[in-house]
Amino acid sequence: MTLHRAEKVIIITEKLISKGVCDIIEACGATGYTIVPAGGKGNRNIRPTSSRASVIDDFANVKIEVIVNGKEIAEKIMNEVADQFFQNYPGITYVEDVEILRPKKF
Amino acid sequence: MTLHRAEKVIIITEKLISKGVCDIIEACGATGYTIVPAGGKGNRNIRPTSSRASVIDDFANVKIEVIVNGKEIAEKIMNEVADQFFQNYPGITYVEDVEILRPKKF
Amino acid sequence: MTLHRAEKVIIITEKLISKGVCDIIEACGATGYTIVPAGGKGNRNIRPTSSRASVIDDFANVKIEVIVNGKEIAEKIMNEVADQFFQNYPGITYVEDVEILRPKKF
Repeated sequence: MTLHRAEKVIIITEKLISKGVCDIIEACGATGYTIVPAGGKGNRNIRPTSSRASVIDDFANVKIEVIVNGKEIAEKIMNEVADQFFQNYPGITYVEDVEILRPKKF
Repeated sequence: MTLHRAEKVIIITEKLISKGVCDIIEACGATGYTIVPAGGKGNRNIRPTSSRASVIDDFANVKIEVIVNGKEIAEKIMNEVADQFFQNYPGITYVEDVEILRPKKF
Repeated sequence: MTLHRAEKVIIITEKLISKGVCDIIEACGATGYTIVPAGGKGNRNIRPTSSRASVIDDFANVKIEVIVNGKEIAEKIMNEVADQFFQNYPGITYVEDVEILRPKKF
């Protein structure tokens, strides 16, 4: 087996705009993504997470992850999401190096 | 304090088979893992995540993370999970470099 | 566009102490963090995650992520969290290299 270098783009933003973000991801050519519920605190956004009773509302943000082949498509996704949404919605985006099994799937 | 290099293996797949995946992780010698609820879209799998009412069903996938010491055990886990499950279930697996505090715990 | 190197600190621990951990993060100078519900198995902690009925209790742990500028602040957060909590609560902390868009936000 060999592992192959790839990039993982991460976008953390409001659940409300997750569909729009995923549309950009697909338009940029990625064939899949993962969405995880998230809460937290950012520059323009405070969400409490310590209260057990309201656990679902606590995670009104999302963390979206996309594995792509190449820095170019990674930066394209990041730029388009930031340009289209981060003026009006809180959000951050960053990229990490990963090594994947079965790169043919991406 | 010093930080120590380690590998983080990530497996994203259906919640249904999470126990089987964790059994492989433990059989390979890892002493712990983290499971996060996940949704998303992959090559053989589409899960909507925008509807608030069905938030629990939205996250019917899982993201499993394991910190291990060495690329060899990382690749062993990745290969065994792929061989045993990824013919019949959607899933991806990849590995990242991390630096951990207190490596003696792993 | 240019991407800028940064560090992502990850802390996985009990939800119960998430406020204390976030207080340390803010005291160290970070301006935001992300919290994700988590379950799993560690050296001192076993939490089942396969039962659908108890999905909320399954994720009684949290995975807290913080993007910071520089290894020094990353290590400060990791050390203070470990010193203050990891004698009495299960937890792990590690750091990853990332590249972020719009570093001015951090």
